[in-house]
Amino acid sequence: MRKKRKGKLTQKIGTPPGTLIYTGDNKDVKPRIRVFEFDEESYKEKELSSLDDWDFSPDSGTVYWVDVVGLSDSEELFRKLRDLCGIHLLVLEDVLNVNHRPKAEYFDDYIFVILKMLTYADDNGVGVESEQVSLIWGSNYVVTFQEREGDVFEGIRDRIRNNKGIVRKEKACYLAYLLIDSVVDNYFAVLEKLGERVEEFEELVITDPSYEIVGNIHNLKRELIELRKSIWPLREVLGVLYKGDSDMIKPCAVYFRDVYDHTVEIIDIVETYREMASGLLDVFLSSLSNKMNEVMKVLTMIATIFIPLTFIAGIYGMNFKYMPELDWKWGYPLVLIVMVFISICMVLYFKRKRWF
Amino acid sequence: MRKKRKGKLTQKIGTPPGTLIYTGDNKDVKPRIRVFEFDEESYKEKELSSLDDWDFSPDSGTVYWVDVVGLSDSEELFRKLRDLCGIHLLVLEDVLNVNHRPKAEYFDDYIFVILKMLTYADDNGVGVESEQVSLIWGSNYVVTFQEREGDVFEGIRDRIRNNKGIVRKEKACYLAYLLIDSVVDNYFAVLEKLGERVEEFEELVITDPSYEIVGNIHNLKRELIELRKSIWPLREVLGVLYKGDSDMIKPCAVYFRDVYDHTVEIIDIVETYREMASGLLDVFLSSLSNKMNEVMKVLTMIATIFIPLTFIAGIYGMNFKYMPELDWKWGYPLVLIVMVFISICMVLYFKRKRWF
Amino acid sequence: MRKKRKGKLTQKIGTPPGTLIYTGDNKDVKPRIRVFEFDEESYKEKELSSLDDWDFSPDSGTVYWVDVVGLSDSEELFRKLRDLCGIHLLVLEDVLNVNHRPKAEYFDDYIFVILKMLTYADDNGVGVESEQVSLIWGSNYVVTFQEREGDVFEGIRDRIRNNKGIVRKEKACYLAYLLIDSVVDNYFAVLEKLGERVEEFEELVITDPSYEIVGNIHNLKRELIELRKSIWPLREVLGVLYKGDSDMIKPCAVYFRDVYDHTVEIIDIVETYREMASGLLDVFLSSLSNKMNEVMKVLTMIATIFIPLTFIAGIYGMNFKYMPELDWKWGYPLVLIVMVFISICMVLYFKRKRWF
Amino acid sequence: MRKKRKGKLTQKIGTPPGTLIYTGDNKDVKPRIRVFEFDEESYKEKELSSLDDWDFSPDSGTVYWVDVVGLSDSEELFRKLRDLCGIHLLVLEDVLNVNHRPKAEYFDDYIFVILKMLTYADDNGVGVESEQVSLIWGSNYVVTFQEREGDVFEGIRDRIRNNKGIVRKEKACYLAYLLIDSVVDNYFAVLEKLGERVEEFEELVITDPSYEIVGNIHNLKRELIELRKSIWPLREVLGVLYKGDSDMIKPCAVYFRDVYDHTVEIIDIVETYREMASGLLDVFLSSLSNKMNEVMKVLTMIATIFIPLTFIAGIYGMNFKYMPELDWKWGYPLVLIVMVFISICMVLYFKRKRWF
Amino acid sequence: MRKKRKGKLTQKIGTPPGTLIYTGDNKDVKPRIRVFEFDEESYKEKELSSLDDWDFSPDSGTVYWVDVVGLSDSEELFRKLRDLCGIHLLVLEDVLNVNHRPKAEYFDDYIFVILKMLTYADDNGVGVESEQVSLIWGSNYVVTFQEREGDVFEGIRDRIRNNKGIVRKEKACYLAYLLIDSVVDNYFAVLEKLGERVEEFEELVITDPSYEIVGNIHNLKRELIELRKSIWPLREVLGVLYKGDSDMIKPCAVYFRDVYDHTVEIIDIVETYREMASGLLDVFLSSLSNKMNEVMKVLTMIATIFIPLTFIAGIYGMNFKYMPELDWKWGYPLVLIVMVFISICMVLYFKRKRWF
Ligand SMILES: [Mg+2]
Ligand SMILES: [Mg+2]
Ligand SMILES: [Mg+2]
Ligand SMILES: [Mg+2]
Ligand SMILES: [Mg+2]
Ligand SMILES: [Mg+2]
Ligand SMILES: [Mg+2]
Ligand SMILES: [Mg+2]
Ligand SMILES: [Mg+2]
Ligand SMILES: [Mg+2]
Ligand SMILES: [Mg+2]
Ligand SMILES: [Mg+2]
Ligand SMILES: [Mg+2]
Ligand SMILES: [Mg+2]
Ligand SMILES: [Mg+2]
Ligand SMILES: [Mg+2]
Ligand SMILES: [Mg+2]
Ligand SMILES: [Mg+2]
Ligand SMILES: [Mg+2]
Ligand SMILES: [Mg+2]
Ligand SMILES: [Mg+2]
Ligand SMILES: [Mg+2]
Ligand SMILES: [Mg+2]
Ligand SMILES: [Mg+2]
Ligand SMILES: [Mg+2]
Ligand SMILES: [Mg+2]
Ligand SMILES: [Mg+2]
Ligand SMILES: [Mg+2]
Ligand SMILES: [Mg+2]
Ligand SMILES: [Mg+2]
Ligand SMILES: [Mg+2]
Repeated sequence: MRKKRKGKLTQKIGTPPGTLIYTGDNKDVKPRIRVFEFDEESYKEKELSSLDDWDFSPDSGTVYWVDVVGLSDSEELFRKLRDLCGIHLLVLEDVLNVNHRPKAEYFDDYIFVILKMLTYADDNGVGVESEQVSLIWGSNYVVTFQEREGDVFEGIRDRIRNNKGIVRKEKACYLAYLLIDSVVDNYFAVLEKLGERVEEFEELVITDPSYEIVGNIHNLKRELIELRKSIWPLREVLGVLYKGDSDMIKPCAVYFRDVYDHTVEIIDIVETYREMASGLLDVFLSSLSNKMNEVMKVLTMIATIFIPLTFIAGIYGMNFKYMPELDWKWGYPLVLIVMVFISICMVLYFKRKRWF
Repeated sequence: MRKKRKGKLTQKIGTPPGTLIYTGDNKDVKPRIRVFEFDEESYKEKELSSLDDWDFSPDSGTVYWVDVVGLSDSEELFRKLRDLCGIHLLVLEDVLNVNHRPKAEYFDDYIFVILKMLTYADDNGVGVESEQVSLIWGSNYVVTFQEREGDVFEGIRDRIRNNKGIVRKEKACYLAYLLIDSVVDNYFAVLEKLGERVEEFEELVITDPSYEIVGNIHNLKRELIELRKSIWPLREVLGVLYKGDSDMIKPCAVYFRDVYDHTVEIIDIVETYREMASGLLDVFLSSLSNKMNEVMKVLTMIATIFIPLTFIAGIYGMNFKYMPELDWKWGYPLVLIVMVFISICMVLYFKRKRWF
Repeated sequence: MRKKRKGKLTQKIGTPPGTLIYTGDNKDVKPRIRVFEFDEESYKEKELSSLDDWDFSPDSGTVYWVDVVGLSDSEELFRKLRDLCGIHLLVLEDVLNVNHRPKAEYFDDYIFVILKMLTYADDNGVGVESEQVSLIWGSNYVVTFQEREGDVFEGIRDRIRNNKGIVRKEKACYLAYLLIDSVVDNYFAVLEKLGERVEEFEELVITDPSYEIVGNIHNLKRELIELRKSIWPLREVLGVLYKGDSDMIKPCAVYFRDVYDHTVEIIDIVETYREMASGLLDVFLSSLSNKMNEVMKVLTMIATIFIPLTFIAGIYGMNFKYMPELDWKWGYPLVLIVMVFISICMVLYFKRKRWF
Repeated sequence: MRKKRKGKLTQKIGTPPGTLIYTGDNKDVKPRIRVFEFDEESYKEKELSSLDDWDFSPDSGTVYWVDVVGLSDSEELFRKLRDLCGIHLLVLEDVLNVNHRPKAEYFDDYIFVILKMLTYADDNGVGVESEQVSLIWGSNYVVTFQEREGDVFEGIRDRIRNNKGIVRKEKACYLAYLLIDSVVDNYFAVLEKLGERVEEFEELVITDPSYEIVGNIHNLKRELIELRKSIWPLREVLGVLYKGDSDMIKPCAVYFRDVYDHTVEIIDIVETYREMASGLLDVFLSSLSNKMNEVMKVLTMIATIFIPLTFIAGIYGMNFKYMPELDWKWGYPLVLIVMVFISICMVLYFKRKRWF
Repeated sequence: MRKKRKGKLTQKIGTPPGTLIYTGDNKDVKPRIRVFEFDEESYKEKELSSLDDWDFSPDSGTVYWVDVVGLSDSEELFRKLRDLCGIHLLVLEDVLNVNHRPKAEYFDDYIFVILKMLTYADDNGVGVESEQVSLIWGSNYVVTFQEREGDVFEGIRDRIRNNKGIVRKEKACYLAYLLIDSVVDNYFAVLEKLGERVEEFEELVITDPSYEIVGNIHNLKRELIELRKSIWPLREVLGVLYKGDSDMIKPCAVYFRDVYDHTVEIIDIVETYREMASGLLDVFLSSLSNKMNEVMKVLTMIATIFIPLTFIAGIYGMNFKYMPELDWKWGYPLVLIVMVFISICMVLYFKRKRWF
């Protein structure tokens, strides 16, 4: 989740509305376009070199899923989408602005949704990774956009190909629901990883607190803040969707409400983690203070026992001519006894004060 | 309340909607089905091996309570429920997803409610334990689902069997109310236990603060956070119920409002405990700082009194040939007097500064 | 406000709705029932042994105040109230549940209100004490319930007896208003006491911070949290009342709005106190840190000045045969001068660093 | 803003509604009544000894401003106001209760507003001072009440006398607006003073943190809390006013909206100051911790360098008969060289650890 | 963003409503007035010395942009604006009050919007700089006001001159949108700079915490607080605009909604930065505590090892006549061995306690 922010926020400054600038990192890649056409009986899957080859019949019973991967170099593609489906220029601009906040917008003929697809990259130490997915769906088509190969939709493609479940029997909104649900489901995988880290830190901070944990807790908190930034608007998006009364929503409203439930649950979990992570730093500080207390007690006990004894030894190390004690026969053992007595008193004093 | 989260959040990823997967721990148990049939005059209680044996007459004056315990291996059962009562597949999916957030949903013919049944297991050190209970009720039936044997409904079964109270005179919604009320009532037992721990820690942190308490307070805070996660949606659930104008609610609205009152009270108590628990760590830190202050004062007083004295003794321990004081007759007693004088000054200085 | 919570929350678990259990401490007391009957001209006051003796004429111009003290042993009383005024069983259950949250409920023929009557017991160190007062009023009667003798209504009884103010000219709702107003007014007395403690602690924590204050501040915070738990629902109650359009409210709406004003003011004050009390612990921690700094500076100055000097004395206390300085005539005074010089340097260094 | 709270909150306890008790400090002062009568052409200003002398014509085109200063001894005055303008007794009670929360209330024939007039008394160290101002206005009159001589209305009196601006051309609500606006405008003067203190403390806490600042910051926070208590209800008041559709508001709604803007701005500023003041204590604690660190480093360096050296000197100060080193010719210089070497090592160690 | 607040808040006190006082710093500058007239075919750009020279035809198809720079000395200008476009005096007052909160107001014939144009001045160390921009637009004109030369509108002037984009084809509201969008876009540039500072401090506080960072973090927090004060009302402004159903909004509503999206995003980012900045101080305090712990451990280890040894050396430095050990042949090596043994014990003890 940690990338250099350099320039990320400023690329669109000064551009007129509707300027189609791709703001992500995956430049100079030709978009790969696949079209899935299906109804209950038949199914076709084509890879198109251009959208010109898409034979789209708007009001037929066939459902089309146009699956676009790669957003640079896509002006041609977008121009045709406008012609075929009548998508507003500002929508296409938002598709290309891959730093956009999740949102849902209703239009007369289609619905536009931006989501963040999260994955947790364990091995390379990056933690949570985020890719923007945009969906546009009308009465019988769904268009999805993503930046890079690799997504969480493989299971859905499978169900279409093999006519599993009811996806081939339902309308486009059901496909849209499936896609959104599968993005949202994956948040739980990310949360599980973060939850493991929270628990690991909780364990560590109590049993074996070391300073490295501060940086780790701070990073965890930052990741949770970032995560929350994706998730709160996600809930808004789904709240907007399941309550919507558009024709592109109604037949699937009960499904969208189910996904909405999940987003509420995700927020609950994130907020719980955040509270726990916040508490961890306080616990660490307590344990640090406690350790310091222990260290100080050791120092104080040693110093308090030996400094007076050393002083007494210093007294009888003075070179005065006339020091009667020095000539006593029992002077030396007497002094030793006095010293032992003082030590015992001190130790008893510390015992009573329960310093050890 | 502390379980390994391993896999808990991720089991449903990739499954199509309506996939009936039980997500809990109590697997490989055949569901035990009991049916209570009753009206004002008669009462029957049967244990069924399959729901086929349930002779359900939808529009009769009889009320049916189908009490299901054990959720694994329940596909057969659920298929029949769909046939008999027309329950939506997504509802049945949620019944099996025992990590679901509490919620209430209205349908045309029935109401669906998910609750968390909390119990406090004192003896084995686990603290708060949670089991998901789902209720579905229509005009003359209630179906309840739980994972494990053992619940808080025994008193209600008793009232049905012995015709105590008005339960046999009322409709299905009154039975649903009784079940929900008895789940909610049990929250007070959990709160009482937690309240005792809060008070115990409050006592300890002032009178005898030791480091172990930090871990205990942190655990308490985590349990309260978890508890709150069950309770806030519970209030929503009951707010939704008592304000509802469905036929399955209206006759019992006044009762649901009474339970709603209780949930508001529970939230008040949980939030109070949370605030107190938060304050405890601050009090502990204060007491730690205070102790450190005491330790430092002891060290400083000892060091400040004896280090200068030791220095003076060191002076007269030097071996210079020409040190006139060493030859004085009263040199030694004079030095001792000077040392006593310095000590007295120091002690007075600390007295004035109120260090002891 | 501090009582053992033992069992307080759990007494009602398992009871059917409408079970009339008194949940307070003042058991085995026969309720004392007084009835005040009055209209503009006449006035009667009777102590009844049973409600049978109450000659209640529902639609007359007379206003009745039934003043019940003591809630145990009240089943008989409640049965008659149901007969005479048609009070719902759940209402009577809430009257007996003296740990209930303040609330207001509208019914067709009457209004039901639960309040907490607060008093501040200075002498016995208990702090804020709370007693539940319930009111039920219809068009021409008011019933009040309290647990123990002693209340804040004596002034109102006086006004009825002596026909002071307009209470004998107005309807039952005006009497209800007077009773509620006089409960709410007393909150200011409690707040004044708490405000004095806040100010006292503010003074102490700056001028003479000692560790005992931490416990005191924590107790104060807990009392304020408890207080808030009574007061927020109180505001809700009065908001519900003054906006109500029931016949039992309308003629007195302007008065209820006046009490509502007071509750808003009370909340303002409580929240202010809470913020101040929260800040106090931070101030105490600052003052503790500051004191520790002072202590450490004293230690460091003493140690830093005398440790090097003692080292020099140690050097010339060594017994090497060949140490030329020891034989110098001015060796001893020279060493003393060097020591004085080092001390002055150190003192100047600390001065420059502004350590004293 | 700091006064003894003694008795301030409790004076009204036990009084019937509409009891006209002045709750402020400025007792035993006869109210001074001035009346300004004006329309576009004419203007009269009279000081009345009693309201009997006010010749008020309710429906004329003349606007009357009755300017009352001093609230004790005002029963006579209030009785006449009730007769002339029909003001409700509860309103007059609130006018006299000078600790009332700011509020606005609509009545059929008039509007009632309570405000706090704030001034900042720099010289006598009191800080923010507050005086309650009440306004009642009808279609052609405005009555204002204040406790003491001295207000922020002199400019408005001037504009009336000299027919500046449009005040003589407009209705009573415009005069009311002018009065409220001039009270609100003065909040900015108070904020400016507080802002200077915030900035001064910010400077101090970084550059020259001393313990006195904790008390000062705490006082500042308390003043800001008190200020906020006046300002949030003030915004409510003006929100209520500018949205009102009463005849006493409508012609001036655009003006009230302008003042509303100001109150929103004032809240923004107060909240900003509060956040800054809260942060200051944390900064102070950091700087204290940092200083402690510096002090500890000095102590540790001195101790760590000299304690081992003193030990070595102690070794050769022992009086054993058989210590070969003591007889070596180069024993003494060798020991000195060893000591210098150890010191250099220590210093290098601290350098590497970047302790100075 | 840091200017002396001296007098900034108090200049308008005592002035009647509609007093046209410029409250900014850029005094004694004659306003520079430029008018852009355009429709799809033609385009004219004039610099006017007075608004008298503006030939404005209210209901034509031409769009006029009156671009005013410099607000002092503008009474003449404003008088004419009132005559030509019927702008309310209070609006013009707000234009001149350059410390005004961002807001949007609807009037019958025009819309009035106040914004803050932010720029980040890197080089001179000032950080965020703010300039107030006011817009008034009617059906076919837009008037903009700013204080100083230099703005973010150059790109828009360019598009008008060269007929780029659709600005010459659209109505006045589209121009207004372009202007607002370009102000809002620039916030991202400011955020990017602040984000870099947040990340820099995060890095520093973990890897190399030094005390200067406290002041820097505090300044950053203050800037973020100030920033938030501009941005929250900005969102309100745009929320008001895009939901508006005035004729001056409707044709461009989709565009205003797009800018609204951006403001929501900006708030997300600012709040994220604020949370991160808040966490930084806690991390710094942890690292300070940790360092102190390290320092204390070094001191304690050195002291604990050498103080007992020095004491032993002191014992045998005493000058008693009868100390048998001194005469032993192996006394000296024996003592040395004992000392080495004690040191090893101590080191092992610290090892076991994991102090190094
Ligand atoms: Mg732009
Ligand atoms: Mg955009
Ligand atoms: Mg991808
Ligand atoms: Mg799902
Ligand atoms: Mg579901
Ligand atoms: Mg914290
Ligand atoms: Mg799924
Ligand atoms: Mg589900
Ligand atoms: Mg069970
Ligand atoms: Mg109950
Ligand atoms: Mg109840
Ligand atoms: Mg909180
Ligand atoms: Mg805290
Ligand atoms: Mg019950
Ligand atoms: Mg109850
Ligand atoms: Mg009582
Ligand atoms: Mg009152
Ligand atoms: Mg009042
Ligand atoms: Mg009263
Ligand atoms: Mg009052
Ligand atoms: Mg005055
Ligand atoms: Mg003003
Ligand atoms: Mg204005
Ligand atoms: Mg706060
Ligand atoms: Mg704090
Ligand atoms: Mg003004
Ligand atoms: Mg203004
Ligand atoms: Mg400019
Ligand atoms: Mg933009
Ligand atoms: Mg956009
Ligand atoms: Mg903090």
